[in-house]
Amino acid sequence: MNDRIEKVLANMKKEGISQLIVSDPSSLWYLTGIGFDPYERLLALLIRDNARPVFFLNNLFNVHGTPFEEVWFSDTDDYIGMMAKYIRPGRLGIDKTWAARFLIPLMERCPYAKPVIGSGCVDDCRAVKDESEIAKMTEASRINDIVNERASRFVSEGMTERQVADFIEKAFVEEGAEGPSFTTIVSFGKNAADPHHEPDDTVLKRGECVLYDMGCIKDHYCSDMTRTFLCGNPDDPSDADKIDPDFVKVYNLVREANEKAESMIRPGVRFCDIDAVARDLITSAGYGPQFNHRLGHFIGQSEHEQGDVSAVNTSTAKPGMIFSIEPGVYIEGRFGVRIEDLVLVTETGHRVLNHVDKNLKVVGTR
Amino acid sequence: MNDRIEKVLANMKKEGISQLIVSDPSSLWYLTGIGFDPYERLLALLIRDNARPVFFLNNLFNVHGTPFEEVWFSDTDDYIGMMAKYIRPGRLGIDKTWAARFLIPLMERCPYAKPVIGSGCVDDCRAVKDESEIAKMTEASRINDIVNERASRFVSEGMTERQVADFIEKAFVEEGAEGPSFTTIVSFGKNAADPHHEPDDTVLKRGECVLYDMGCIKDHYCSDMTRTFLCGNPDDPSDADKIDPDFVKVYNLVREANEKAESMIRPGVRFCDIDAVARDLITSAGYGPQFNHRLGHFIGQSEHEQGDVSAVNTSTAKPGMIFSIEPGVYIEGRFGVRIEDLVLVTETGHRVLNHVDKNLKVVGTR
Repeated sequence: MNDRIEKVLANMKKEGISQLIVSDPSSLWYLTGIGFDPYERLLALLIRDNARPVFFLNNLFNVHGTPFEEVWFSDTDDYIGMMAKYIRPGRLGIDKTWAARFLIPLMERCPYAKPVIGSGCVDDCRAVKDESEIAKMTEASRINDIVNERASRFVSEGMTERQVADFIEKAFVEEGAEGPSFTTIVSFGKNAADPHHEPDDTVLKRGECVLYDMGCIKDHYCSDMTRTFLCGNPDDPSDADKIDPDFVKVYNLVREANEKAESMIRPGVRFCDIDAVARDLITSAGYGPQFNHRLGHFIGQSEHEQGDVSAVNTSTAKPGMIFSIEPGVYIEGRFGVRIEDLVLVTETGHRVLNHVDKNLKVVGTR
Repeated sequence: MNDRIEKVLANMKKEGISQLIVSDPSSLWYLTGIGFDPYERLLALLIRDNARPVFFLNNLFNVHGTPFEEVWFSDTDDYIGMMAKYIRPGRLGIDKTWAARFLIPLMERCPYAKPVIGSGCVDDCRAVKDESEIAKMTEASRINDIVNERASRFVSEGMTERQVADFIEKAFVEEGAEGPSFTTIVSFGKNAADPHHEPDDTVLKRGECVLYDMGCIKDHYCSDMTRTFLCGNPDDPSDADKIDPDFVKVYNLVREANEKAESMIRPGVRFCDIDAVARDLITSAGYGPQFNHRLGHFIGQSEHEQGDVSAVNTSTAKPGMIFSIEPGVYIEGRFGVRIEDLVLVTETGHRVLNHVDKNLKVVGTR
């Protein structure tokens, strides 16, 4: 049994879970070195406190020689029945991502088992990165910094969001990453007021904000950073009348919220308290309703992993955790500002993985 | 209420389901015109037989003015509790893709409701395409044919699988598609023996087979086709000794299985009987164990939709259905052959949406 599975078993004991179904491909990869998207097919590892894990594998999968008990099946076999034979009475941990197509029939076959969300037992391990994971995530963020700065030099009035997003995604590969870790967000002007805007044919005009929310994958691990820029110089009178009168004020507010939150990160600090520092600052400036999302999320092999920096998370930071700090203010029909870094909790404090300057930068003016 | 939701309600009545949670983004788009990947957030439509549907929406989503009752919530709200208030006693249809993170807590809040897989009520509608959907899928397959033929002219000894896959994915966009509908499969030689091989740096050598399994998205709808070629001329003595002695025989067997299965498609034919015709032919030639997957799958907005052509599907073909016919034979360590078309069931028979010739074609020789 490997160390990571041993840690999961220790967490299962704490949670009173004797059997756990793991199905998230990233968790499977983390625990077994085998993990891929099985689309609508079943791929799962059953971890048990009294015997070695069982891997449920469709014979279409190109998997060989695992150290686990293996149960192979075809598309036309009764694979839920095959799995049910391994389930014992009592609490049964279920991966939070497991699809109803498997869960509902399994529960019908095993009325003696009580399903509970059990993936926290794996996610708590994944949340604390080891040295090799920290090195990979540092490298993914280094590439992200470089590409962000290249994109700032590349963008220009008259370009479309899609052009800049394409540039960023190609540059990731040129700089050695496998590709983007999520659909690159490039938003101009009022499009930035939608935190999840997807790049389209909107053309950049003088005076508008430019928001990049971007990340890449390098050696299975993700980066994620947001910077907001301005296409126009607020100190130049001919630009000033094109720039939203509240933009600079909001920019500096969001930047302060980002920096205040980051500065307090150290082992033992509660995530809800980190969120509160940024949120209180933005709320007292009158923009509370315009900051309509949590302050941050955990990240690793997946862009969004279990764990967040939000008002409802009372757990505390531990060395090795990596998460985003990304306050934002979104003014419908006008502009949006978000500033995001990834932050690693160290033994004595924290290390920000991104290094792109946060002073308001003018981009794209010709 | 729109026609599609009316049809879903009629299916729910047949299934004895008075309430149905729809969460698959493609199904939501099909029913409401609104559908996107909400990542780990809740996005669901509750369809009820006694009142208008309820849309559950995170206030981060950029959705406005739906014709449904709307329930808005934030990341920190008790949105499962908000949903539970709408659930009545009795059978509760659940989307087959719905994640355990929502299903398990909802079931704890609503012990009076019995969850059953209910997405068939939507999938049965989606399986039968209307005229506009057929036109879009015909167009997506037309582009797929063109790009397949371009890739056959492009490939050459010494190229890597990745180079050819990149060419195909770029060509999709050049020909007017949005992009690939799944990760393009390009397999050379023994790599083709893994039906789900992902393109890597394997270099094409004389005598090897070349398999493309590819598809694109055009106007939300997918295409999907496989052709297998040969890098070398079996009739040229200097090539013949490099070609696996069984390749041509297996190629012709798979081609015959593909054509025999397609030729019998018409309304009323059972899917298991279509599968059997191809499978029996391959089995009687001694390659049954090497054809280790179902004959085909339904397709539409998603590359794989509910419904398949397999030994266990006793339902029958109806006009408007579109699915793949893709027999294959995979010889570990040597080669693989798969030949796949999309086929539309018409009022009187069928129409094959792909037109790339199935005579064994020599590609890549210089």
